[in-house]
Amino acid sequence: MMELRGKAVADALKEKIKKFLDKMDEKERPQLAVVRVGERSDDLAYERMVMKNCAALGLPVRVEAMNEQVTTDEILELIDALNGDDAVRGILVFRPLPVGIDEQAVIEAVSVEKDVDCMNPQNLQYVMVSDERAIPPCTPEAVMRILSYYGFSLEGKNVVIVNRSGVIGRPLSIMMLEQNATVTVCHSRTKNLARITSQADIVVVGVGRPRFFGAEYFNENSIVIDIGINFDERGACGDVDYDAVAPAVRAITPVPGGVGTVTSTVLLSHVLPEAFL
Amino acid sequence: MMELRGKAVADALKEKIKKFLDKMDEKERPQLAVVRVGERSDDLAYERMVMKNCAALGLPVRVEAMNEQVTTDEILELIDALNGDDAVRGILVFRPLPVGIDEQAVIEAVSVEKDVDCMNPQNLQYVMVSDERAIPPCTPEAVMRILSYYGFSLEGKNVVIVNRSGVIGRPLSIMMLEQNATVTVCHSRTKNLARITSQADIVVVGVGRPRFFGAEYFNENSIVIDIGINFDERGACGDVDYDAVAPAVRAITPVPGGVGTVTSTVLLSHVLPEAFL
Repeated sequence: MMELRGKAVADALKEKIKKFLDKMDEKERPQLAVVRVGERSDDLAYERMVMKNCAALGLPVRVEAMNEQVTTDEILELIDALNGDDAVRGILVFRPLPVGIDEQAVIEAVSVEKDVDCMNPQNLQYVMVSDERAIPPCTPEAVMRILSYYGFSLEGKNVVIVNRSGVIGRPLSIMMLEQNATVTVCHSRTKNLARITSQADIVVVGVGRPRFFGAEYFNENSIVIDIGINFDERGACGDVDYDAVAPAVRAITPVPGGVGTVTSTVLLSHVLPEAFL
Repeated sequence: MMELRGKAVADALKEKIKKFLDKMDEKERPQLAVVRVGERSDDLAYERMVMKNCAALGLPVRVEAMNEQVTTDEILELIDALNGDDAVRGILVFRPLPVGIDEQAVIEAVSVEKDVDCMNPQNLQYVMVSDERAIPPCTPEAVMRILSYYGFSLEGKNVVIVNRSGVIGRPLSIMMLEQNATVTVCHSRTKNLARITSQADIVVVGVGRPRFFGAEYFNENSIVIDIGINFDERGACGDVDYDAVAPAVRAITPVPGGVGTVTSTVLLSHVLPEAFL
Protein backbone atom coordinates (compact mmCIF):
# COMPACT_ATOMS: atom_id res chain seq x y z
CA MET A 1 0.00 0.00 0.00
CA MET A 2 1.18 3.47 -0.91
CA GLU A 3 0.37 6.28 1.49
CA LEU A 4 -0.42 9.44 -0.43
CA ARG A 5 0.88 11.99 2.02
CA GLY A 6 -0.12 15.56 1.36
CA LYS A 7 3.07 17.03 2.74
CA ALA A 8 5.22 15.94 -0.20
CA VAL A 9 2.69 17.41 -2.62
CA ALA A 10 2.48 20.69 -0.73
CA ASP A 11 6.28 20.87 -0.40
CA ALA A 12 6.78 20.42 -4.14
CA LEU A 13 4.25 23.15 -4.87
CA LYS A 14 5.83 25.45 -2.27
CA GLU A 15 9.22 24.90 -3.87
CA LYS A 16 7.79 25.90 -7.23
CA ILE A 17 6.13 29.02 -5.83
CA LYS A 18 9.32 30.01 -4.01
CA LYS A 19 11.44 29.63 -7.14
CA PHE A 20 8.99 31.72 -9.11
CA LEU A 21 8.95 34.52 -6.53
CA ASP A 22 12.72 34.42 -5.92
CA LYS A 23 13.25 35.61 -9.47
CA MET A 24 11.16 38.72 -8.85
CA ASP A 25 12.07 41.93 -7.16
CA GLU A 26 10.22 42.09 -3.85
CA LYS A 27 8.24 45.16 -4.89
CA GLU A 28 7.01 43.44 -8.04
CA ARG A 29 5.76 40.30 -6.36
CA PRO A 30 2.03 39.66 -6.40
CA GLN A 31 0.43 40.47 -3.09
CA LEU A 32 -2.20 38.63 -1.07
CA ALA A 33 -4.72 40.77 0.83
CA VAL A 34 -6.40 39.16 3.81
CA VAL A 35 -9.66 40.74 4.95
CA ARG A 36 -10.53 40.03 8.57
CA VAL A 37 -13.50 41.53 10.40
CA GLY A 38 -13.37 41.35 14.19
CA GLU A 39 -11.09 39.17 16.29
CA ARG A 40 -12.53 35.65 16.22
CA SER A 41 -9.95 33.26 17.60
CA ASP A 42 -10.12 30.86 14.67
CA ASP A 43 -9.72 33.75 12.21
CA LEU A 44 -6.66 34.88 14.13
CA ALA A 45 -5.22 31.36 14.13
CA TYR A 46 -5.87 31.03 10.38
CA GLU A 47 -4.28 34.43 9.83
CA ARG A 48 -1.14 33.43 11.71
CA MET A 49 -0.88 30.32 9.57
CA VAL A 50 -1.33 32.27 6.34
CA MET A 51 1.26 34.85 7.46
CA LYS A 52 3.75 32.13 8.33
CA ASN A 53 3.22 30.28 5.04
CA CYS A 54 3.49 33.50 3.03
CA ALA A 55 6.70 34.49 4.84
CA ALA A 56 8.23 31.10 4.10
CA LEU A 57 7.41 31.50 0.42
CA GLY A 58 8.41 35.15 0.11
CA LEU A 59 4.85 36.06 -0.84
CA PRO A 60 3.90 39.54 0.36
CA VAL A 61 0.71 39.62 2.40
CA ARG A 62 -1.29 42.57 3.63
CA VAL A 63 -3.84 42.14 6.43
CA GLU A 64 -6.84 44.44 6.29
CA ALA A 65 -8.35 44.14 9.74
CA MET A 66 -11.67 45.87 10.32
CA ASN A 67 -13.49 46.16 13.58
CA GLU A 68 -16.66 44.22 14.26
CA GLN A 69 -18.87 47.30 14.08
CA VAL A 70 -18.07 47.83 10.41
CA THR A 71 -20.97 47.99 7.90
CA THR A 72 -21.43 45.97 4.73
CA ASP A 73 -20.86 49.13 2.71
CA GLU A 74 -17.54 49.77 4.39
CA ILE A 75 -16.37 46.24 3.61
CA LEU A 76 -17.54 46.64 0.01
CA GLU A 77 -15.54 49.86 -0.24
CA LEU A 78 -12.45 48.05 0.95
CA ILE A 79 -13.01 45.17 -1.51
CA ASP A 80 -13.47 47.72 -4.26
CA ALA A 81 -10.17 49.40 -3.39
CA LEU A 82 -8.39 46.01 -3.33
CA ASN A 83 -9.95 45.06 -6.66
CA GLY A 84 -8.58 48.27 -8.13
CA ASP A 85 -5.11 47.93 -6.59
CA ASP A 86 -2.79 46.39 -9.20
CA ALA A 87 -0.30 45.22 -6.58
CA VAL A 88 -2.95 43.01 -4.95
CA ARG A 89 -3.37 39.78 -6.92
CA GLY A 90 -5.35 37.77 -4.43
CA ILE A 91 -8.09 38.60 -1.92
CA LEU A 92 -8.99 36.25 0.91
CA VAL A 93 -11.98 37.14 3.10
CA PHE A 94 -12.26 35.25 6.37
CA ARG A 95 -15.69 33.82 6.91
CA PRO A 96 -18.19 33.69 8.42
CA LEU A 97 -18.49 37.46 8.56
CA PRO A 98 -20.22 38.89 11.65
CA VAL A 99 -24.01 38.68 11.85
CA GLY A 100 -25.62 41.65 10.13
CA ILE A 101 -23.07 41.76 7.29
CA ASP A 102 -24.34 40.80 3.83
CA GLU A 103 -21.75 38.09 3.28
CA GLN A 104 -23.07 37.15 -0.14
CA ALA A 105 -22.67 40.73 -1.37
CA VAL A 106 -19.11 40.76 -0.06
CA ILE A 107 -17.99 37.55 -1.75
CA GLU A 108 -19.66 38.49 -5.01
CA ALA A 109 -17.79 41.80 -4.91
CA VAL A 110 -14.38 40.13 -4.95
CA SER A 111 -13.02 40.39 -8.47
CA VAL A 112 -13.04 36.96 -10.12
CA GLU A 113 -9.36 37.29 -11.10
CA LYS A 114 -8.36 37.83 -7.46
CA ASP A 115 -10.74 35.31 -5.93
CA VAL A 116 -8.04 32.89 -4.72
CA ASP A 117 -10.41 30.90 -2.51
CA CYS A 118 -13.08 30.48 -5.23
CA MET A 119 -15.77 32.16 -3.13
CA ASN A 120 -17.36 34.18 -5.92
CA PRO A 121 -20.11 32.08 -7.57
CA GLN A 122 -18.92 33.32 -10.96
CA ASN A 123 -15.68 31.47 -10.41
CA LEU A 124 -17.44 28.18 -9.69
CA GLN A 125 -19.54 28.72 -12.78
CA TYR A 126 -16.36 29.13 -14.83
CA VAL A 127 -15.06 25.85 -13.42
CA MET A 128 -18.29 24.09 -14.33
CA VAL A 129 -18.04 25.10 -17.98
CA SER A 130 -14.25 24.70 -18.12
CA ASP A 131 -13.75 28.39 -18.82
CA GLU A 132 -10.04 29.17 -18.76
CA ARG A 133 -10.61 32.16 -16.49
CA ALA A 134 -11.62 29.82 -13.65
CA ILE A 135 -9.70 29.66 -10.39
CA PRO A 136 -10.69 26.21 -9.13
CA PRO A 137 -11.84 25.60 -5.57
CA CYS A 138 -8.89 24.51 -3.41
CA THR A 139 -10.07 21.08 -2.26
CA PRO A 140 -10.83 19.67 -5.73
CA GLU A 141 -7.56 21.12 -7.01
CA ALA A 142 -5.69 19.54 -4.08
CA VAL A 143 -7.16 16.16 -5.07
CA MET A 144 -5.99 16.63 -8.66
CA ARG A 145 -2.52 17.65 -7.49
CA ILE A 146 -2.17 14.63 -5.20
CA LEU A 147 -3.09 12.23 -8.00
CA SER A 148 -0.75 13.94 -10.41
CA TYR A 149 2.14 14.14 -7.94
CA TYR A 150 1.99 10.42 -7.21
CA GLY A 151 1.83 9.58 -10.91
CA PHE A 152 -1.79 8.48 -11.20
CA SER A 153 -3.15 9.53 -14.58
CA LEU A 154 -6.90 9.98 -14.98
CA GLU A 155 -6.91 9.03 -18.65
CA GLY A 156 -9.52 6.32 -19.21
CA LYS A 157 -9.87 5.66 -15.49
CA ASN A 158 -13.16 4.97 -13.73
CA VAL A 159 -13.56 7.44 -10.90
CA VAL A 160 -16.31 7.45 -8.28
CA ILE A 161 -16.86 10.62 -6.26
CA VAL A 162 -19.07 10.27 -3.20
CA ASN A 163 -20.07 13.93 -2.79
CA ARG A 164 -22.37 15.96 -5.01
CA SER A 165 -21.87 19.41 -3.49
CA GLY A 166 -21.43 22.48 -5.63
CA VAL A 167 -18.00 23.24 -4.17
CA ILE A 168 -16.48 19.75 -4.15
CA GLY A 169 -18.12 16.86 -5.98
CA ARG A 170 -19.50 18.70 -8.97
CA PRO A 171 -16.48 20.82 -9.87
CA LEU A 172 -14.17 17.85 -9.22
CA SER A 173 -16.24 15.69 -11.57
CA ILE A 174 -15.89 18.29 -14.32
CA MET A 175 -12.15 18.68 -13.72
CA MET A 176 -11.70 14.91 -13.95
CA LEU A 177 -13.87 14.59 -17.07
CA GLU A 178 -11.58 17.17 -18.68
CA GLN A 179 -8.74 14.73 -18.13
CA ASN A 180 -10.64 11.89 -19.76
CA ALA A 181 -11.74 10.04 -16.66
CA THR A 182 -15.14 8.35 -16.66
CA VAL A 183 -16.79 9.88 -13.63
CA THR A 184 -19.64 8.68 -11.42
CA VAL A 185 -21.06 11.03 -8.78
CA CYS A 186 -22.69 9.27 -5.81
CA HIS A 187 -24.43 10.62 -2.73
CA SER A 188 -26.63 9.74 0.22
CA ARG A 189 -29.45 8.51 -2.03
CA THR A 190 -27.23 6.19 -4.07
CA LYS A 191 -28.21 2.54 -3.90
CA ASN A 192 -25.60 -0.25 -3.62
CA LEU A 193 -22.86 2.28 -2.95
CA ALA A 194 -20.26 -0.34 -2.05
CA ARG A 195 -20.89 -2.20 -5.29
CA ILE A 196 -20.28 1.00 -7.26
CA THR A 197 -17.22 2.25 -5.38
CA SER A 198 -15.58 -1.18 -5.26
CA GLN A 199 -15.53 -1.35 -9.06
CA ALA A 200 -13.76 1.98 -9.55
CA ASP A 201 -10.06 2.66 -10.14
CA ILE A 202 -10.12 5.83 -8.06
CA VAL A 203 -12.58 6.62 -5.26
CA VAL A 204 -12.91 10.10 -3.74
CA VAL A 205 -15.04 10.27 -0.60
CA GLY A 206 -16.36 13.27 1.28
CA VAL A 207 -19.48 12.57 3.29
CA GLY A 208 -18.58 13.85 6.76
CA ARG A 209 -19.06 10.52 8.54
CA PRO A 210 -16.11 9.39 10.65
CA ARG A 211 -14.58 6.07 9.49
CA PHE A 212 -17.70 5.27 7.45
CA PHE A 213 -16.04 3.51 4.52
CA GLY A 214 -14.75 0.04 5.40
CA ALA A 215 -12.79 -2.37 3.21
CA GLU A 216 -15.95 -3.62 1.48
CA TYR A 217 -16.11 -0.31 -0.43
CA PHE A 218 -12.81 -0.91 -2.21
CA ASN A 219 -10.70 -3.50 -3.99
CA GLU A 220 -6.99 -4.29 -3.85
CA ASN A 221 -6.27 -1.90 -6.75
CA SER A 222 -8.31 1.03 -5.42
CA ILE A 223 -6.75 4.47 -5.15
CA VAL A 224 -8.58 6.13 -2.27
CA ILE A 225 -8.76 9.89 -1.71
CA ASP A 226 -10.38 10.85 1.57
CA ILE A 227 -11.49 14.48 1.81
CA GLY A 228 -13.43 14.00 5.04
CA ILE A 229 -12.20 15.74 8.20
CA ASN A 230 -14.01 14.47 11.27
CA PHE A 231 -13.38 14.13 14.94
CA ASP A 232 -14.46 11.19 17.04
CA GLU A 233 -13.47 9.78 20.40
CA ARG A 234 -10.14 8.61 18.93
CA GLY A 235 -9.29 12.05 17.49
CA ALA A 236 -9.17 13.50 13.96
CA CYS A 237 -10.12 11.06 11.23
CA GLY A 238 -11.39 10.89 7.69
CA ASP A 239 -14.46 9.27 6.17
CA VAL A 240 -12.46 6.10 5.56
CA ASP A 241 -11.75 3.55 8.26
CA TYR A 242 -8.05 3.92 7.59
CA ASP A 243 -6.79 1.05 9.70
CA ALA A 244 -9.12 -1.43 8.04
CA VAL A 245 -8.82 -0.07 4.49
CA ALA A 246 -5.16 0.92 4.11
CA PRO A 247 -3.76 -2.64 4.09
CA ALA A 248 -6.36 -3.70 1.53
CA VAL A 249 -5.93 -1.09 -1.24
CA ARG A 250 -3.28 0.15 -3.65
CA ALA A 251 -3.00 3.73 -2.36
CA ILE A 252 -4.75 5.98 0.16
CA THR A 253 -4.52 9.49 1.58
CA PRO A 254 -4.24 9.65 5.37
CA VAL A 255 -6.36 11.99 7.51
CA PRO A 256 -4.87 14.14 8.90
CA GLY A 257 -1.94 14.63 6.56
CA GLY A 258 -3.69 14.10 3.24
CA VAL A 259 -5.85 16.41 1.13
CA GLY A 260 -6.21 19.03 3.88
CA THR A 261 -2.45 19.47 4.00
CA VAL A 262 -2.38 20.55 0.37
CA THR A 263 -5.30 23.03 0.19
CA SER A 264 -3.65 25.98 1.96
CA THR A 265 -0.68 25.88 -0.42
CA VAL A 266 -3.04 25.58 -3.41
CA LEU A 267 -4.77 28.73 -2.19
CA LEU A 268 -1.48 30.65 -2.05
CA SER A 269 -0.50 29.42 -5.51
CA HIS A 270 -3.64 31.16 -6.82
CA VAL A 271 -2.07 34.53 -6.00
CA LEU A 272 0.52 33.90 -8.70
CA PRO A 273 -0.24 34.63 -12.33
CA GLU A 274 -1.79 31.85 -14.40
CA ALA A 275 1.45 31.48 -16.34
CA PHE A 276 2.96 30.05 -13.15
CA LEU A 277 0.90 26.88 -13.52
CA MET B 1 -40.80 -3.24 -24.59
CA MET B 2 -42.22 0.23 -24.15
CA GLU B 3 -41.63 2.73 -26.92
CA LEU B 4 -41.08 6.19 -25.43
CA ARG B 5 -42.56 8.27 -28.19
CA GLY B 6 -41.82 11.97 -28.04
CA LYS B 7 -45.12 13.02 -29.58
CA ALA B 8 -47.19 12.17 -26.50
CA VAL B 9 -44.78 14.14 -24.33
CA ALA B 10 -44.79 17.14 -26.65
CA ASP B 11 -48.60 17.00 -26.96
CA ALA B 12 -49.07 17.03 -23.19
CA LEU B 13 -46.75 20.01 -22.86
CA LYS B 14 -48.49 21.82 -25.74
CA GLU B 15 -51.83 21.25 -24.05
CA LYS B 16 -50.49 22.80 -20.87
CA ILE B 17 -49.05 25.82 -22.70
CA LYS B 18 -52.29 26.33 -24.61
CA LYS B 19 -54.40 26.22 -21.45
CA PHE B 20 -52.12 28.73 -19.80
CA LEU B 21 -52.27 31.15 -22.72
CA ASP B 22 -56.01 30.70 -23.29
CA LYS B 23 -56.63 32.33 -19.93
CA MET B 24 -54.79 35.47 -21.00
CA ASP B 25 -55.88 38.35 -23.10
CA GLU B 26 -54.06 38.20 -26.42
CA LYS B 27 -52.28 41.50 -25.81
CA GLU B 28 -50.96 40.32 -22.46
CA ARG B 29 -49.50 37.08 -23.71
CA PRO B 30 -45.73 36.70 -23.62
CA GLN B 31 -44.19 37.17 -27.03
CA LEU B 32 -41.42 35.27 -28.79
CA ALA B 33 -39.04 37.29 -30.97
CA VAL B 34 -37.23 35.40 -33.71
CA VAL B 35 -34.09 37.04 -35.08
CA ARG B 36 -33.15 35.90 -38.57
CA VAL B 37 -30.27 37.33 -40.59
CA GLY B 38 -30.37 36.60 -44.33
CA GLU B 39 -32.48 33.99 -46.08
CA ARG B 40 -30.79 30.63 -45.51
CA SER B 41 -33.21 27.91 -46.55
CA ASP B 42 -32.88 25.95 -43.31
CA ASP B 43 -33.48 29.12 -41.27
CA LEU B 44 -36.62 29.75 -43.33
CA ALA B 45 -37.80 26.17 -42.83
CA TYR B 46 -37.16 26.40 -39.09
CA GLU B 47 -38.98 29.74 -39.01
CA ARG B 48 -42.04 28.27 -40.71
CA MET B 49 -42.09 25.47 -38.16
CA VAL B 50 -41.79 27.89 -35.25
CA MET B 51 -44.56 30.10 -36.69
CA LYS B 52 -46.83 27.11 -37.14
CA ASN B 53 -46.22 25.79 -33.65
CA CYS B 54 -46.72 29.22 -32.10
CA ALA B 55 -49.96 29.72 -34.02
CA ALA B 56 -51.27 26.36 -32.83
CA LEU B 57 -50.50 27.32 -29.23
CA GLY B 58 -51.75 30.89 -29.41
CA LEU B 59 -48.27 32.19 -28.63
CA PRO B 60 -47.56 35.54 -30.29
CA VAL B 61 -44.38 35.55 -32.35
CA ARG B 62 -42.57 38.44 -33.99
CA VAL B 63 -40.00 37.81 -36.71
CA GLU B 64 -37.16 40.31 -36.90
CA ALA B 65 -35.61 39.62 -40.28
CA MET B 66 -32.41 41.48 -41.11
CA ASN B 67 -30.61 41.44 -44.40
CA GLU B 68 -27.31 39.65 -44.79
CA GLN B 69 -25.30 42.88 -45.04
CA VAL B 70 -26.16 43.86 -41.50
CA THR B 71 -23.31 44.58 -39.04
CA THR B 72 -22.71 43.06 -35.62
CA ASP B 73 -23.52 46.43 -34.05
CA GLU B 74 -26.86 46.59 -35.80
CA ILE B 75 -27.79 43.12 -34.54
CA LEU B 76 -26.67 44.10 -31.04
CA GLU B 77 -28.90 47.18 -31.21
CA LEU B 78 -31.85 45.01 -32.14
CA ILE B 79 -31.10 42.55 -29.31
CA ASP B 80 -30.84 45.48 -26.94
CA ALA B 81 -34.23 46.78 -28.01
CA LEU B 82 -35.78 43.30 -27.61
CA ASN B 83 -34.16 42.93 -24.18
CA GLY B 84 -35.78 46.20 -23.15
CA ASP B 85 -39.21 45.42 -24.62
CA ASP B 86 -41.41 44.08 -21.81
CA ALA B 87 -43.81 42.39 -24.23
CA VAL B 88 -41.00 40.17 -25.55
CA ARG B 89 -40.38 37.28 -23.15
CA GLY B 90 -38.23 35.09 -25.36
CA ILE B 91 -35.55 35.76 -27.98
CA LEU B 92 -34.47 33.13 -30.46
CA VAL B 93 -31.53 33.90 -32.75
CA PHE B 94 -31.11 31.59 -35.74
CA ARG B 95 -27.57 30.34 -36.06
CA PRO B 96 -25.04 30.17 -37.56
CA LEU B 97 -25.03 33.90 -38.22
CA PRO B 98 -23.39 35.02 -41.49
CA VAL B 99 -19.58 35.05 -41.69
CA GLY B 100 -18.19 38.34 -40.38
CA ILE B 101 -20.76 38.66 -37.59
CA ASP B 102 -19.45 38.28 -34.04
CA GLU B 103 -21.86 35.50 -33.10
CA GLN B 104 -20.48 35.15 -29.58
CA ALA B 105 -21.14 38.83 -28.87
CA VAL B 106 -24.69 38.43 -30.15
CA ILE B 107 -25.59 35.41 -28.04
CA GLU B 108 -24.01 36.91 -24.95
CA ALA B 109 -26.11 40.04 -25.50
CA VAL B 110 -29.41 38.14 -25.22
CA SER B 111 -30.80 38.78 -21.75
CA VAL B 112 -30.54 35.62 -19.64
CA GLU B 113 -34.24 35.83 -18.71
CA LYS B 114 -35.24 35.79 -22.39
CA ASP B 115 -32.69 33.25 -23.56
CA VAL B 116 -35.20 30.50 -24.42
CA ASP B 117 -32.68 28.41 -26.34
CA CYS B 118 -30.01 28.55 -23.61
CA MET B 119 -27.44 30.12 -25.93
CA ASN B 120 -26.00 32.62 -23.45
CA PRO B 121 -23.12 30.97 -21.53
CA GLN B 122 -24.42 32.58 -18.34
CA ASN B 123 -27.51 30.44 -18.62
CA LEU B 124 -25.52 27.21 -18.88
CA GLN B 125 -23.48 28.33 -15.91
CA TYR B 126 -26.68 28.77 -13.93
CA VAL B 127 -27.74 25.25 -14.88
CA MET B 128 -24.39 23.87 -13.75
CA VAL B 129 -24.73 25.35 -10.28
CA SER B 130 -28.49 24.70 -10.07
CA ASP B 131 -29.27 28.41 -9.86
CA GLU B 132 -33.01 28.89 -9.99
CA ARG B 133 -32.66 31.58 -12.66
CA ALA B 134 -31.48 28.95 -15.16
CA ILE B 135 -33.35 28.21 -18.37
CA PRO B 136 -32.10 24.69 -19.15
CA PRO B 137 -30.90 23.69 -22.62
CA CYS B 138 -33.74 22.12 -24.59
CA THR B 139 -32.32 18.65 -25.27
CA PRO B 140 -31.48 17.78 -21.64
CA GLU B 141 -34.84 19.16 -20.56
CA ALA B 142 -36.57 17.06 -23.24
CA VAL B 143 -34.87 13.95 -21.81
CA MET B 144 -36.08 14.84 -18.31
CA ARG B 145 -39.62 15.42 -19.58
CA ILE B 146 -39.73 12.10 -21.43
CA LEU B 147 -38.64 10.17 -18.34
CA SER B 148 -41.12 12.02 -16.16
CA TYR B 149 -44.01 11.67 -18.63
CA TYR B 150 -43.57 7.90 -18.84
CA GLY B 151 -43.37 7.59 -15.07
CA PHE B 152 -39.68 6.81 -14.65
CA SER B 153 -38.41 8.41 -11.45
CA LEU B 154 -34.70 9.18 -11.15
CA GLU B 155 -34.63 8.75 -7.37
CA GLY B 156 -31.84 6.35 -6.45
CA LYS B 157 -31.42 5.21 -10.07
CA ASN B 158 -28.08 4.54 -11.73
CA VAL B 159 -27.86 6.62 -14.88
CA VAL B 160 -25.11 6.48 -17.49
CA ILE B 161 -24.79 9.37 -19.93
CA VAL B 162 -22.55 8.77 -22.93
CA ASN B 163 -21.81 12.41 -23.83
CA ARG B 164 -19.69 14.88 -21.93
CA SER B 165 -20.43 18.05 -23.90
CA GLY B 166 -21.11 21.34 -22.20
CA VAL B 167 -24.58 21.64 -23.72
CA ILE B 168 -25.84 18.08 -23.26
CA GLY B 169 -23.99 15.59 -21.06
CA ARG B 170 -22.76 17.92 -18.37
CA PRO B 171 -25.94 19.90 -17.74
CA LEU B 172 -28.02 16.71 -17.96
CA SER B 173 -25.80 15.06 -15.35
CA ILE B 174 -26.36 17.97 -12.99
CA MET B 175 -30.12 17.99 -13.61
CA MET B 176 -30.27 14.27 -12.87
CA LEU B 177 -28.10 14.54 -9.74
CA GLU B 178 -30.60 17.14 -8.49
CA GLN B 179 -33.25 14.43 -8.71
CA ASN B 180 -31.15 12.00 -6.68
CA ALA B 181 -29.89 9.84 -9.52
CA THR B 182 -26.37 8.42 -9.30
CA VAL B 183 -24.83 9.64 -12.53
CA THR B 184 -21.89 8.37 -14.56
CA VAL B 185 -20.64 10.43 -17.51
CA CYS B 186 -18.87 8.41 -20.22
CA HIS B 187 -17.21 9.47 -23.48
CA SER B 188 -14.93 8.35 -26.28
CA ARG B 189 -12.05 7.65 -23.89
CA THR B 190 -14.09 5.48 -21.56
CA LYS B 191 -12.84 1.91 -21.24
CA ASN B 192 -15.25 -1.06 -21.09
CA LEU B 193 -18.15 1.14 -22.09
CA ALA B 194 -20.55 -1.77 -22.63
CA ARG B 195 -19.81 -3.12 -19.16
CA ILE B 196 -20.65 0.26 -17.65
CA THR B 197 -23.80 1.00 -19.66
CA SER B 198 -25.17 -2.52 -19.31
CA GLN B 199 -25.23 -2.18 -15.50
CA ALA B 200 -27.25 1.05 -15.46
CA ASP B 201 -30.98 1.53 -14.94
CA ILE B 202 -31.16 4.38 -17.45
CA VAL B 203 -28.75 4.97 -20.35
CA VAL B 204 -28.67 8.22 -22.33
CA VAL B 205 -26.56 8.12 -25.48
CA GLY B 206 -25.45 10.93 -27.76
CA VAL B 207 -22.27 10.18 -29.68
CA GLY B 208 -23.26 10.90 -33.28
CA ARG B 209 -22.53 7.41 -34.60
CA PRO B 210 -25.38 5.77 -36.52
CA ARG B 211 -26.66 2.55 -34.91
CA PHE B 212 -23.49 2.26 -32.80
CA PHE B 213 -25.03 0.81 -29.65
CA GLY B 214 -26.06 -2.84 -30.01
CA ALA B 215 -27.84 -5.07 -27.51
CA GLU B 216 -24.59 -5.81 -25.64
CA TYR B 217 -24.71 -2.27 -24.20
CA PHE B 218 -27.97 -2.87 -22.35
CA ASN B 219 -29.87 -5.34 -20.21
CA GLU B 220 -33.50 -6.41 -20.21
CA ASN B 221 -34.42 -3.71 -17.67
CA SER B 222 -32.59 -0.85 -19.41
CA ILE B 223 -34.40 2.39 -20.13
CA VAL B 224 -32.69 3.77 -23.22
CA ILE B 225 -32.78 7.42 -24.28
CA ASP B 226 -31.24 8.05 -27.69
CA ILE B 227 -30.41 11.68 -28.43
CA GLY B 228 -28.42 10.90 -31.58
CA ILE B 229 -29.74 12.11 -34.91
CA ASN B 230 -27.84 10.57 -37.80
CA PHE B 231 -28.44 9.67 -41.40
CA ASP B 232 -27.15 6.56 -43.08
CA GLU B 233 -28.05 4.63 -46.19
CA ARG B 234 -31.28 3.44 -44.54
CA GLY B 235 -32.35 6.98 -43.59
CA ALA B 236 -32.59 8.87 -40.31
CA CYS B 237 -31.48 6.90 -37.28
CA GLY B 238 -30.20 7.31 -33.75
CA ASP B 239 -27.02 6.15 -32.07
CA VAL B 240 -28.79 2.97 -31.00
CA ASP B 241 -29.29 0.02 -33.31
CA TYR B 242 -33.02 0.22 -32.68
CA ASP B 243 -34.06 -3.02 -34.37
CA ALA B 244 -31.56 -5.05 -32.38
CA VAL B 245 -31.97 -3.26 -29.07
CA ALA B 246 -35.69 -2.49 -28.80
CA PRO B 247 -36.83 -6.11 -28.28
CA ALA B 248 -34.15 -6.61 -25.62
CA VAL B 249 -34.78 -3.70 -23.24
CA ARG B 250 -37.53 -2.34 -21.00
CA ALA B 251 -38.08 0.99 -22.76
CA ILE B 252 -36.50 3.01 -25.57
CA THR B 253 -36.98 6.27 -27.46
CA PRO B 254 -37.26 5.89 -31.24
CA VAL B 255 -35.31 8.07 -33.69
CA PRO B 256 -36.94 9.89 -35.36
CA GLY B 257 -39.93 10.46 -33.08
CA GLY B 258 -38.14 10.53 -29.73
CA VAL B 259 -36.17 13.25 -27.97
CA GLY B 260 -35.99 15.52 -31.04
CA THR B 261 -39.78 15.65 -31.20
CA VAL B 262 -39.93 17.21 -27.74
CA THR B 263 -37.21 19.88 -27.94
CA SER B 264 -39.06 22.46 -30.07
CA THR B 265 -42.02 22.46 -27.67
CA VAL B 266 -39.66 22.75 -24.70
CA LEU B 267 -38.16 25.82 -26.33
CA LEU B 268 -41.57 27.45 -26.73
CA SER B 269 -42.47 26.63 -23.12
CA HIS B 270 -39.50 28.76 -22.08
CA VAL B 271 -41.28 31.87 -23.34
CA LEU B 272 -43.85 31.43 -20.58
CA PRO B 273 -43.13 32.70 -17.08
CA GLU B 274 -41.41 30.34 -14.67
CA ALA B 275 -44.61 30.02 -12.68
CA PHE B 276 -46.02 28.05 -15.63
CA LEU B 277 -43.73 25.12 -14.83
